[in-house]
Amino acid sequence: MSSMWNNGIQISVFGESHSAGIGVVLDHLPAGKKIDLDEVQAFLKRRQAKSDGTTTSRIEPDIPKIISGLYDGKTTGTPLAMVIENTNTRSQDYKNLKASMRPGHADYTGYLRYHGQNDIRGGGHFSGRLTACLVMAGAICGQILEEKGIYTGAHLLSVGALKGQKLDTVTLTKEEVLSLRKLPFPVRDPQLREEIIKKINDVRISQNSIGGMIECVCVGMPAGVGSPMLNSLESILSSLIFSVPGVKGLEFGKGFEVASMLGSENNDPFYYDENQKVRTKTNHHGGILGGISSGMPIDFRVAMKPTPSISLAQDTIDVEQKENTTLNIVGRHDPCIAVRAVPVVEACCNIGLLSAMVDQFGVEL
Amino acid sequence: MSSMWNNGIQISVFGESHSAGIGVVLDHLPAGKKIDLDEVQAFLKRRQAKSDGTTTSRIEPDIPKIISGLYDGKTTGTPLAMVIENTNTRSQDYKNLKASMRPGHADYTGYLRYHGQNDIRGGGHFSGRLTACLVMAGAICGQILEEKGIYTGAHLLSVGALKGQKLDTVTLTKEEVLSLRKLPFPVRDPQLREEIIKKINDVRISQNSIGGMIECVCVGMPAGVGSPMLNSLESILSSLIFSVPGVKGLEFGKGFEVASMLGSENNDPFYYDENQKVRTKTNHHGGILGGISSGMPIDFRVAMKPTPSISLAQDTIDVEQKENTTLNIVGRHDPCIAVRAVPVVEACCNIGLLSAMVDQFGVEL
Amino acid sequence: MSSMWNNGIQISVFGESHSAGIGVVLDHLPAGKKIDLDEVQAFLKRRQAKSDGTTTSRIEPDIPKIISGLYDGKTTGTPLAMVIENTNTRSQDYKNLKASMRPGHADYTGYLRYHGQNDIRGGGHFSGRLTACLVMAGAICGQILEEKGIYTGAHLLSVGALKGQKLDTVTLTKEEVLSLRKLPFPVRDPQLREEIIKKINDVRISQNSIGGMIECVCVGMPAGVGSPMLNSLESILSSLIFSVPGVKGLEFGKGFEVASMLGSENNDPFYYDENQKVRTKTNHHGGILGGISSGMPIDFRVAMKPTPSISLAQDTIDVEQKENTTLNIVGRHDPCIAVRAVPVVEACCNIGLLSAMVDQFGVEL
Amino acid sequence: MSSMWNNGIQISVFGESHSAGIGVVLDHLPAGKKIDLDEVQAFLKRRQAKSDGTTTSRIEPDIPKIISGLYDGKTTGTPLAMVIENTNTRSQDYKNLKASMRPGHADYTGYLRYHGQNDIRGGGHFSGRLTACLVMAGAICGQILEEKGIYTGAHLLSVGALKGQKLDTVTLTKEEVLSLRKLPFPVRDPQLREEIIKKINDVRISQNSIGGMIECVCVGMPAGVGSPMLNSLESILSSLIFSVPGVKGLEFGKGFEVASMLGSENNDPFYYDENQKVRTKTNHHGGILGGISSGMPIDFRVAMKPTPSISLAQDTIDVEQKENTTLNIVGRHDPCIAVRAVPVVEACCNIGLLSAMVDQFGVEL
Repeated sequence: MSSMWNNGIQISVFGESHSAGIGVVLDHLPAGKKIDLDEVQAFLKRRQAKSDGTTTSRIEPDIPKIISGLYDGKTTGTPLAMVIENTNTRSQDYKNLKASMRPGHADYTGYLRYHGQNDIRGGGHFSGRLTACLVMAGAICGQILEEKGIYTGAHLLSVGALKGQKLDTVTLTKEEVLSLRKLPFPVRDPQLREEIIKKINDVRISQNSIGGMIECVCVGMPAGVGSPMLNSLESILSSLIFSVPGVKGLEFGKGFEVASMLGSENNDPFYYDENQKVRTKTNHHGGILGGISSGMPIDFRVAMKPTPSISLAQDTIDVEQKENTTLNIVGRHDPCIAVRAVPVVEACCNIGLLSAMVDQFGVEL
Repeated sequence: MSSMWNNGIQISVFGESHSAGIGVVLDHLPAGKKIDLDEVQAFLKRRQAKSDGTTTSRIEPDIPKIISGLYDGKTTGTPLAMVIENTNTRSQDYKNLKASMRPGHADYTGYLRYHGQNDIRGGGHFSGRLTACLVMAGAICGQILEEKGIYTGAHLLSVGALKGQKLDTVTLTKEEVLSLRKLPFPVRDPQLREEIIKKINDVRISQNSIGGMIECVCVGMPAGVGSPMLNSLESILSSLIFSVPGVKGLEFGKGFEVASMLGSENNDPFYYDENQKVRTKTNHHGGILGGISSGMPIDFRVAMKPTPSISLAQDTIDVEQKENTTLNIVGRHDPCIAVRAVPVVEACCNIGLLSAMVDQFGVEL
Repeated sequence: MSSMWNNGIQISVFGESHSAGIGVVLDHLPAGKKIDLDEVQAFLKRRQAKSDGTTTSRIEPDIPKIISGLYDGKTTGTPLAMVIENTNTRSQDYKNLKASMRPGHADYTGYLRYHGQNDIRGGGHFSGRLTACLVMAGAICGQILEEKGIYTGAHLLSVGALKGQKLDTVTLTKEEVLSLRKLPFPVRDPQLREEIIKKINDVRISQNSIGGMIECVCVGMPAGVGSPMLNSLESILSSLIFSVPGVKGLEFGKGFEVASMLGSENNDPFYYDENQKVRTKTNHHGGILGGISSGMPIDFRVAMKPTPSISLAQDTIDVEQKENTTLNIVGRHDPCIAVRAVPVVEACCNIGLLSAMVDQFGVEL
Repeated sequence: MSSMWNNGIQISVFGESHSAGIGVVLDHLPAGKKIDLDEVQAFLKRRQAKSDGTTTSRIEPDIPKIISGLYDGKTTGTPLAMVIENTNTRSQDYKNLKASMRPGHADYTGYLRYHGQNDIRGGGHFSGRLTACLVMAGAICGQILEEKGIYTGAHLLSVGALKGQKLDTVTLTKEEVLSLRKLPFPVRDPQLREEIIKKINDVRISQNSIGGMIECVCVGMPAGVGSPMLNSLESILSSLIFSVPGVKGLEFGKGFEVASMLGSENNDPFYYDENQKVRTKTNHHGGILGGISSGMPIDFRVAMKPTPSISLAQDTIDVEQKENTTLNIVGRHDPCIAVRAVPVVEACCNIGLLSAMVDQFGVEL
């Protein structure tokens, strides 16, 4: 339909990679919520290009300008709009791409969808750059969630064959979640981190790219939030997660493993703990049952494909000459989009969870 | 938010397992499309309980009554409403469940969400029975898609450790897709089919349940349909798929495998074939690039958890006594919900794809 | 787009005048709200044909069947669906109308919109009969509003040149509002009531029809509910009111009179009353300022056109012969649709106001 | 719900009177439509303050900056975002208003709705200034409509007791519609124009304000566009029109007059004209029957209240001291908001009609 998303919270994402700017409007927010813009900036910084060779060398300051919806450091309750100007653009890099469709990209599908009228510079509205809008929105939503004691975090679980440990979502604490955000590079284990950084650099040097997996978690979500069927928490979150370019898979809790499990193995027994709080002994359900939060940590994993832009020569088509051709992509690209997608996935989680809260409790929450 | 879903096509699902009936309204349909009600019935029949021991013994005729929107065998263009009366209900089976929360079920989360006011008989609105509404809607959408040369199908790819072959979505034909619907039991390979039927029977006899994986495909979807970002085809489809109770994972094309692939491996080279039709040599992207159809077959897989209702004794809580307890579930349950979910997943695919078509081309398509 | 309406509350209306039935789904309702079905029936009865000659002689019992969403007399919080079967239909009356387009009706526009595929029997989905669905929905919403101390009522303000007094919305009480619902015929002043009944009978006997105006009011709406701009209370209410067939005008508070007033006349001065409650000395604003409720009674008026179906010969077109023709409509029709539209307008008000409440305070209200 | 509006076309309005800027996002637009930015600017100029004493003296250049969605002078099909920076702001004028609630304004209702957290400078998000966003959106939509031969126009029909002639919507031509946009002051009759300008000046000098009525028309809308019930053309248009601050009434075609008409008077006879085009002899229905366009000109009228900001002393409340008080409003205000609302109403008409077109025919129109 569009780049608007309408649930409890509503967002409207706009911009193209090389247009005047990119931005997002958040609507139906509670009024009077304190927003720390330094934290918004810090969240955006986690998505920025890095100098360790794991990302593109196009580093943009990404300083959001608040257009409306914040006054005296608090949400006004009316639409909150933010814009980031596009500055560091090299449109000439995309000249030869107009007719040659990059494999794995939206060039061909976008060309058909928009009859060749879409802005193809830097990928236009399809650019991964647009995920900065989701991050801005998610940063705002996250601060409102935190006021309610709800904390989300994400980390890079794997790159290629290098795989880390999933978080233990039975014992998961707020502190562990917060520590994820502090990581200079979003891999938890220091040794694995170095290996992954090295691997991505190797891939980059070989003019290739590589995929990865992201895990996202949330603690503090109150039990009983969400809906069955078409507005299940999973439906809401998935519609956001699959809007992130490059996502090819999403699983909650035990995810695809459930397909080979017995009911007696997969079912998570409920119990009252010593504080009479309801918990489950295991958390295969990933904090969501029947589309509604159970009070246990929410937990999902996202598969990101390798960056489609690689410098190696590739077979493709020229849609103007209507013939097969070979393409060499120049320009600056991330060798592993999963790295910078970590805060994006976390941001989507924030948007989805706050939306479910507002849907259920209204803007007076 | 609710059990309504609003995109190009709009659906409103209603009913509880033991209420007077269940039903669905489809809105914003094209007018004048021929609908074969026998085919709708045949689609529903694929979801019905079977007599081979792989499903519950609660067999309901599931005969949909058309309330409105069809006249002289064609869609009127105004809301199409269908209702199935609930007949074969044994509400007494659920008496002792009111306070004891079934592990893996929505009993506890629904209890909190609706303050104990939801109809818990047979799972109420959370019941897998509600998926018959999605099937009815999907059957209607599917017939309209077929008029456009778009065909969808689904099959059971695995149950427990018993795994079949994924379809080859580069060479996939309409005939192969249609053949999936003819299978008496939705496994393609005859030998594997027997093994799976036996496995499910064994599991059932042992009072347990088991998970499974479903693959869904589509041929004939024209290239250039969909949108980037928040209304990507994946976002639309995922919001429907994750509304099916028991789904814990969803992946498109290569899915989670992309996380360990190189860009040079994952990118699908475009080429003009002998008929000057654009195709890709491989189909790792699963027919969708940048949220928009590429013209290649669409392909995704869904992980279904084992039925949470098992007869084995389980630890759980009693929310009235507020104490830990043990539960023995009686009643009739599917030992493997993945079996009957096959047509449900296909139906969701139909709804999502027709919705994207209507969103882009309007109701005059 | 469709016959669905999505705000805080969501409704899906379906059915055709001569299809199997008509119905409505209400979604995103609070759970556990007591619903008195006798009151729903009484609300519907106010919309039924009367035996005083002011309405059609097609009297249908209009007994709603609850399909889902009510259990033990309370809302479950999941979709509440109601269906009324169509019984007293005389489809043969409409035989000669297929090609001859009734002036003032949707025959011609519906014929184009649905390419002649819409069910034209009895007006199909365009029929005033569909307003029974709005009444059912509004009856449910009204009972939830009353639990919050919010009461709505409507009455027939004028028919032709016979005009009654507007209610005094500064002093309006709950008792006055409730008394409106008790009127056997919805005109407040007994003498005017007799004159109007006589006038409508005269019009009916002369094979003609006549227009009228309805006033709708609400007391008890808390101040501060609603939104500026695109979801103002007026926007929400108007989108419902203009869905009622035959409505041609809507005005809030002083309405069209404001166009000839000075600011000093129109502005309503605020003051604290003896109980420190904020009120306005006059209520020209009709209880809504900036799209948000002020705490003063809400008040609007609706202009209903005369029934387009009249028995007098009328010039029109035959779309099959593509020629001009003359039409004599037979069948049973209301001489003044405004009479039976009174509870419909009140029902729309209920839907809109509960929707705004749920949007702001969530389903936990 | 919010300042987003979701139909065939989607818009998101943001900004506050004294925030960094105001803006609008349009989504689900067709791709490749030529947009003349000078015409957008000319449309905005019609809403600007004038130097003839009929408006505020706060003249802002209102130059929209295109953030995204336009490339090479054509729509890209992805979200089109425009921002106008706020420049000429005098926030100090609003200092004493924080506690004193201006009668007729949204100060009090906004204070409650947003718990005093809304930006009250210049009216914040409630400001009439936000209507510039609707104008920008409507200017874009209007250009796309014109490519389809659909033309809209609006004029000031009355101010106070000074009333002009309604347009003849049976004979109305494109040329007459276009001439409305050329008027230096939006009153058709030159003599009445002078009288109205003088009247408004008199009112301004007397520190008062005055109401007015606007008529809006459209020629060229194809017959058969729209829907019955909840998405009738009237519902769609009304939800936009009632989002314009100060609107208190809306009527289509004969409007409130229908309440005193007979069916034989009000029904518009259809006929085939000499070109076999279907027309009606009269146009009391205002171009819409059953929620769907009839092919006759569309025609509606809007009542605007007098500007609530007047310099005369007014009784009101102080919400901090919680006591009654007297208020003298300083600052620059329009003595008759109806003047500048003329292009706003026309813009809303454009948004609504294009939305209905896209809803029905998709973005490929």
